[in-house]
Amino acid sequence: MSIRFQIEASNGAGRLGRLITPHGVVETPVFMPVGTLASVKGVPQDLLEDLGVQILLGNTYHLYLRPGVDTVRGMGGLHGFMSWDRAILTDSGGFQVFSLTELRKVHEEGVTFRSHLDGSSHFFSPESAIEAEIGLGADIIMAFDECTEFPAERERVRASMELTLRWAERSKKHFEEHKRRVPWGTSAQHSALSIQPKRSGESPADADRSVRAPQKIGKLRSPGQTGAAVPAWAGTLPTTGATQSLFGIVQGGMDLELRRESAERTVEIGFPGYAMGGLSVGEPRAVTREIVESTLPYLPIDQPRYLMGVGTPEEIAAYAALGVDMMDCVLPTRAARHGLLFTSVGKVSIKQARYANDAGALDPACGCRVCARYSRAYLRHLYASNEVLAQVLNTVHNLSFYLDTMRRVRHSIRLGEGTGFLSGVSSQPKP
Amino acid sequence: MSIRFQIEASNGAGRLGRLITPHGVVETPVFMPVGTLASVKGVPQDLLEDLGVQILLGNTYHLYLRPGVDTVRGMGGLHGFMSWDRAILTDSGGFQVFSLTELRKVHEEGVTFRSHLDGSSHFFSPESAIEAEIGLGADIIMAFDECTEFPAERERVRASMELTLRWAERSKKHFEEHKRRVPWGTSAQHSALSIQPKRSGESPADADRSVRAPQKIGKLRSPGQTGAAVPAWAGTLPTTGATQSLFGIVQGGMDLELRRESAERTVEIGFPGYAMGGLSVGEPRAVTREIVESTLPYLPIDQPRYLMGVGTPEEIAAYAALGVDMMDCVLPTRAARHGLLFTSVGKVSIKQARYANDAGALDPACGCRVCARYSRAYLRHLYASNEVLAQVLNTVHNLSFYLDTMRRVRHSIRLGEGTGFLSGVSSQPKP
Repeated sequence: MSIRFQIEASNGAGRLGRLITPHGVVETPVFMPVGTLASVKGVPQDLLEDLGVQILLGNTYHLYLRPGVDTVRGMGGLHGFMSWDRAILTDSGGFQVFSLTELRKVHEEGVTFRSHLDGSSHFFSPESAIEAEIGLGADIIMAFDECTEFPAERERVRASMELTLRWAERSKKHFEEHKRRVPWGTSAQHSALSIQPKRSGESPADADRSVRAPQKIGKLRSPGQTGAAVPAWAGTLPTTGATQSLFGIVQGGMDLELRRESAERTVEIGFPGYAMGGLSVGEPRAVTREIVESTLPYLPIDQPRYLMGVGTPEEIAAYAALGVDMMDCVLPTRAARHGLLFTSVGKVSIKQARYANDAGALDPACGCRVCARYSRAYLRHLYASNEVLAQVLNTVHNLSFYLDTMRRVRHSIRLGEGTGFLSGVSSQPKP
Repeated sequence: MSIRFQIEASNGAGRLGRLITPHGVVETPVFMPVGTLASVKGVPQDLLEDLGVQILLGNTYHLYLRPGVDTVRGMGGLHGFMSWDRAILTDSGGFQVFSLTELRKVHEEGVTFRSHLDGSSHFFSPESAIEAEIGLGADIIMAFDECTEFPAERERVRASMELTLRWAERSKKHFEEHKRRVPWGTSAQHSALSIQPKRSGESPADADRSVRAPQKIGKLRSPGQTGAAVPAWAGTLPTTGATQSLFGIVQGGMDLELRRESAERTVEIGFPGYAMGGLSVGEPRAVTREIVESTLPYLPIDQPRYLMGVGTPEEIAAYAALGVDMMDCVLPTRAARHGLLFTSVGKVSIKQARYANDAGALDPACGCRVCARYSRAYLRHLYASNEVLAQVLNTVHNLSFYLDTMRRVRHSIRLGEGTGFLSGVSSQPKP
């Protein structure tokens, strides 16, 4: 096993946990920011560390196309490539390929699809997707699944669910046979204690370009740059000999019975963690919640449970209260790029003229570096002027708001406070 | 006087100085990053502080159009608006309007021009430009001048120079009559010691949105976030009662005689500092240098001398050695956005495929946070994938390279080392 999951407290169905990975501890319930192309759009890694991000998500489909798995593998996997020493999770590409409605074709063997970049033809099977995920070297990787379209007939949903189950077996088989090839797992040179991951692929001829010894880097960085309260490596599993962890994915469309069957049969195959996929694909939010609520009881209580692609701040808080441990969503980062900012008093569309002369902080209740320093008027000006800094600052704030929301959820579970705190979490537009 | 300039050492014509402004000390020779729209594109203010930026440049033309002078004035000027407590300089808009070749018309009274944004018609006179600059509230503001086109006949150059001289008189007159209206100068609430400038324009009704007391901000910021070796306020002039400083601009095209006459007559009008304008407008670089070298002796030796819009790293080092104290240029920031990076071994075009698997630092001799953390392969990937982080990181590196170049120049002047260090400054493409 290459992760450990410890439940430290619970409150109703919600639970507080520690997910110990080869690259640091992740406090759960956790919201995972999305770094599609090995970058959370516009935000340098040291700012993510300052925000307290303990785990990032990367997209296998995108990274497979650019820069390519071999390049990432050659740099020691995503950790070395993007210089991120904390935990990473990759999806399998299943959902991304599913989004290419016009450009894909699903067979028993796998999926043929065309790149959204240049139309070139590619093929993902459970084996090749897992192969890519091993090369990318995330701590947690996902089985290759078919994300069932919505709406769909029951027979179609069942067939799709059965395909995902067969692919889950194949994913697991390939992973078990090849998991020792993880780029960092067998490298004695990698130390979880070094701030800077050793970059593999450096030949002696490159030595003159690689003078960054750990002690030099230690000196160059000011203390504030890696300012997490808990060092990333505290409780980290030894990476030497460690492998990644493969999670299974429950499908079954919007059918409670099929969801239950998918959960039971995925658990039978056996994974160290389970995700609920195929949600947030256009169904009403009440349906999403019903599916999640009815599926959770069929997932092992002592293993991490991951709800993929959800949601608003209220939703992530509510799902955490239901017992979900991990969530990811592009909403905070994508909304930031459109000037939509989450605050303690509701959603703010910063482009509005009403903020042009507003000297107040974006969210006076927020402690992030954006709210501590800049006015709404300045943020509005940056957005209206199409300045790149708008994207940087807006993204930092929205991520901070999401991470703070989850901190409050964890705090509340620890204190056994119930979910009264949810009343303070709102994404309704500001009145 | 609202600035003081102290020369601390000299070496040949080069001199080491301290320019003391109402918003902190600027060590000269200095390179001033350009923050056109109250933002250095893509770089948050705390990163600029970490880089050691002591003075920023803002563009009056752009800020006049967006967000407008009244908005900036209402927030306490640029310092309050963009939350930057260190020194700022604004140009007068003369050069920007000059760049609108097809959209402007010059009269004795001023310049009529059309906005590059929406084609709307506007008018700048020396009086209205200075009025705008007072509202923006930079520590140093520039007289409104005509930037003579290149090439131009001698008579045209003379006429343009004479116009600039008349406008310099009018600029000074308007400034002297209105300089007490600077947004921060008369505010007893502004303290140069507070990290967060008090935002004016806050009514009591806004109080609930303005809970950012200095001590709260002090706690929220980690020490590394404001990591300059010398605090920005050390030696700062008291802002209460302080005013801005208006610099004159020497014109005269590429004619040494007219440049000399322009310098002498501008000095006769009398300013606390002088700029050389109308250069880097298409003339050969040897001509620029000849003009600068022949003009400097006619500028007061005990006052700051500012060369506008120049240049490459070699050029800024060479001009500093000639006795220029201040320079600005869009080159490091603009080149960064095009993936052109300055390093100790020459210019690197990071988009090139040769860097796709290059695990080395961009510039092993550079101590910036980009070179300390990321590989060329990662920077190449970000640029090739059009990730916003490419612009952020590339800009941070290029600015760091420029600021380091000036640090070395200052160090070299202090030690009386001559300009041998220039051999290490190169913008030739990497072989």
